[in-house]
Amino acid sequence: MKNVSNRPRVVIVGAGFGGLAAAKRLAGKRVDVTLIDRRNHHVFQPLLYQVATAGLSPADIAGPIRGIFSRAPNIRVLLDEVTGVNVFDGEVVLKGGTKLDYDWLILATGARHSYFGHDEWSAHAPGLKSIEDALAIRRKVLLALERAETETDQRMRLALLTFVVVGGGPTGVEMAGAIAELAQRSVSRDFRNITPRCSRVILLEAGERVLPTFPPELSRAAERSLEDLGVEVRLRAPVRDIGDGYVDTAKELIFARTVVWAAGVTASPAADWLQVDKDRNGRLFVEADLHVAGHRNIFAIGDTANAPGIGGAALPAVAPVAKQQGKFVADVILGRRSGTFIYRDFGNLATIGRSRAVVDMGRLRMSGFIAWLTWSAAHVWFLIGFRSRLAVTLNWLWNYLTYQRSARLITGEVEFSHPQPRSQPLERKCA
Amino acid sequence: MKNVSNRPRVVIVGAGFGGLAAAKRLAGKRVDVTLIDRRNHHVFQPLLYQVATAGLSPADIAGPIRGIFSRAPNIRVLLDEVTGVNVFDGEVVLKGGTKLDYDWLILATGARHSYFGHDEWSAHAPGLKSIEDALAIRRKVLLALERAETETDQRMRLALLTFVVVGGGPTGVEMAGAIAELAQRSVSRDFRNITPRCSRVILLEAGERVLPTFPPELSRAAERSLEDLGVEVRLRAPVRDIGDGYVDTAKELIFARTVVWAAGVTASPAADWLQVDKDRNGRLFVEADLHVAGHRNIFAIGDTANAPGIGGAALPAVAPVAKQQGKFVADVILGRRSGTFIYRDFGNLATIGRSRAVVDMGRLRMSGFIAWLTWSAAHVWFLIGFRSRLAVTLNWLWNYLTYQRSARLITGEVEFSHPQPRSQPLERKCA
Repeated sequence: MKNVSNRPRVVIVGAGFGGLAAAKRLAGKRVDVTLIDRRNHHVFQPLLYQVATAGLSPADIAGPIRGIFSRAPNIRVLLDEVTGVNVFDGEVVLKGGTKLDYDWLILATGARHSYFGHDEWSAHAPGLKSIEDALAIRRKVLLALERAETETDQRMRLALLTFVVVGGGPTGVEMAGAIAELAQRSVSRDFRNITPRCSRVILLEAGERVLPTFPPELSRAAERSLEDLGVEVRLRAPVRDIGDGYVDTAKELIFARTVVWAAGVTASPAADWLQVDKDRNGRLFVEADLHVAGHRNIFAIGDTANAPGIGGAALPAVAPVAKQQGKFVADVILGRRSGTFIYRDFGNLATIGRSRAVVDMGRLRMSGFIAWLTWSAAHVWFLIGFRSRLAVTLNWLWNYLTYQRSARLITGEVEFSHPQPRSQPLERKCA
Repeated sequence: MKNVSNRPRVVIVGAGFGGLAAAKRLAGKRVDVTLIDRRNHHVFQPLLYQVATAGLSPADIAGPIRGIFSRAPNIRVLLDEVTGVNVFDGEVVLKGGTKLDYDWLILATGARHSYFGHDEWSAHAPGLKSIEDALAIRRKVLLALERAETETDQRMRLALLTFVVVGGGPTGVEMAGAIAELAQRSVSRDFRNITPRCSRVILLEAGERVLPTFPPELSRAAERSLEDLGVEVRLRAPVRDIGDGYVDTAKELIFARTVVWAAGVTASPAADWLQVDKDRNGRLFVEADLHVAGHRNIFAIGDTANAPGIGGAALPAVAPVAKQQGKFVADVILGRRSGTFIYRDFGNLATIGRSRAVVDMGRLRMSGFIAWLTWSAAHVWFLIGFRSRLAVTLNWLWNYLTYQRSARLITGEVEFSHPQPRSQPLERKCA
């Protein structure tokens, strides 16, 4: 890009929490910003699991990036994919071959699923990172229920009604709780041949407890809440293999047609673009002020960065870290700040299902209904834009009061090749 | 299906307006009903164009069919595809080979796009019948704007910003108006390199006037409203050819990357299943009480049927006809009614855009703001379920007050292979 204005050119790659926070801080300032993302929308990722379980619509938790910067003429939004960085010439290379010059570069490219070297599992156990992922999981869960309704082979029916979530972090816990609610509620109301007793939701966690980043007593509270919802929690159960219709742990072979991956992520290939060292999760090592070692004008933030926290351990891959880092590097670029980025931890929240959550705010730890209200308020508050907040609040209130799920749509073509025997009894049955 | 209960078995194929109305009337009665649809959701088709133009989310206008019949144990909902009917044995054949016995059969399979023998046009000019269609058009329109923003070839940029709607019936008029509003509003707010002046929306109608089923003065009012919105209305402009990036009418070759087909529909293949005569739109001929000639226990309703109206002309393919026919045949099956189906026409409505509509209720004809309020109220009222009504009303109110579009998401993978030249000026430009 030709430098028309002589103002510093900032290129931000990725419009997640980190990139968006940086761009917002730079809006209206004397810099020319180009914000590049592969999608036209920002996604509020903490609520993606609600789209995956038919509680919310995509537009409730995602909005066009352009719309956020309507009134900021110094922010240019570009729908494109970055394929590399030419650090010597200070250029970002786009998929079509175009190059964009930068004076400052912010890498906020986020993370994607990691199958620990078993990429072949991805076909059977989709992860949850984008709106497309969420819609694919929603489709899979809803279709499994539909097929179970007409399936007469008992073993296949049970496999269709068995849902496995791999990974007991916040996403896994939230997914397991929401699937249990969805399957049991809608099955008991709307289906004729299957009953809630038939469906199983199994949460597999390799470690000693779910929510390992929370205090142990909150992990135990979460486990109890999950069990109240009918989720079978399996601890110390690392996955050995996942294939078409099954999950194999060291102790057990589970037949399940729906498996959701919530176990591991890896950073996007930003480290490879710069040809610098990365940690085992693919994250770039950054200095105290978040610039990449050896590149004073390149910053990495959020899930892309391995930034040292207190005690030297890397900061967690959560939204508040990314947002605070985005603001920090914007201030560094504007010359308003320097020195060391310090993460202010306001606490951790995770929800388990209707009326249940755990909250860890240092000395204040709680679980149950009040924790759930806190979780709801915090999530609605941080949603982008007043409209989404209102839409989500109303949807939740509606779902809460009616026990319904408002977005139970199976979209995309459905395969109808399953042969069914001629006679189908109307009465309910289940093993 | 084995007849367990000895009650009459009714099979309804299709859960559009007609099939749903029939099933609702049969709910709780002494009949066993199986309602079959290829999708798990009912779509409120009159508002599909709002999903296609990013005003509403799919879940706002569609809901799971099962949910509608939660409390009606005699209605079984089946997600499957019908491939044929065996009239001698009284069986419906499903895709997987399963057969369902019926005592009464209601064919409510609706219509799909017809390209008048030019099926090759479908790849370039998608129609609007399903949620998937609407999302595909939304994606196409939004991506065209995104690409125009970075395109530097002047001719390509203009083709990206030219939107052609083929067909001046209600769907075509509504689409053209909504695209014009979307393109101009969001372009003027959120984009940097393109301006509203650059974009063109062209409505092609083969006949003498738009909305040919309305009185001529309302057609003229609609044309004026469209022109106020910046839509170029071309009358007597039949399409000769549609290809990759162009539409050819007898008088004009239009370069456009986005073409929407709203010109013709044909009935689904129900006539072929029964091997009976069909009209040139593929519709089954039905007798006065809507049974198919020669098959006293098979009814055809809605867009599937050619039912004679006053004066002998076929009844129009609109939702009220399908709904009234659905109730009527349900009553015939229940032995509550017989004789001739008579359509009660309460009027015709079409909207053109923000604050503009035409209403034809016999002696009462109006256009403008009051007509638009009438249109809005009627559409909200007829939406399935209180929740959708509330969601749509709030969305509309929000969109109306803020001039925003709440569902501007491009979902699915985006191709980024377009090469772009190195320097891109930030200033706006347009031919």
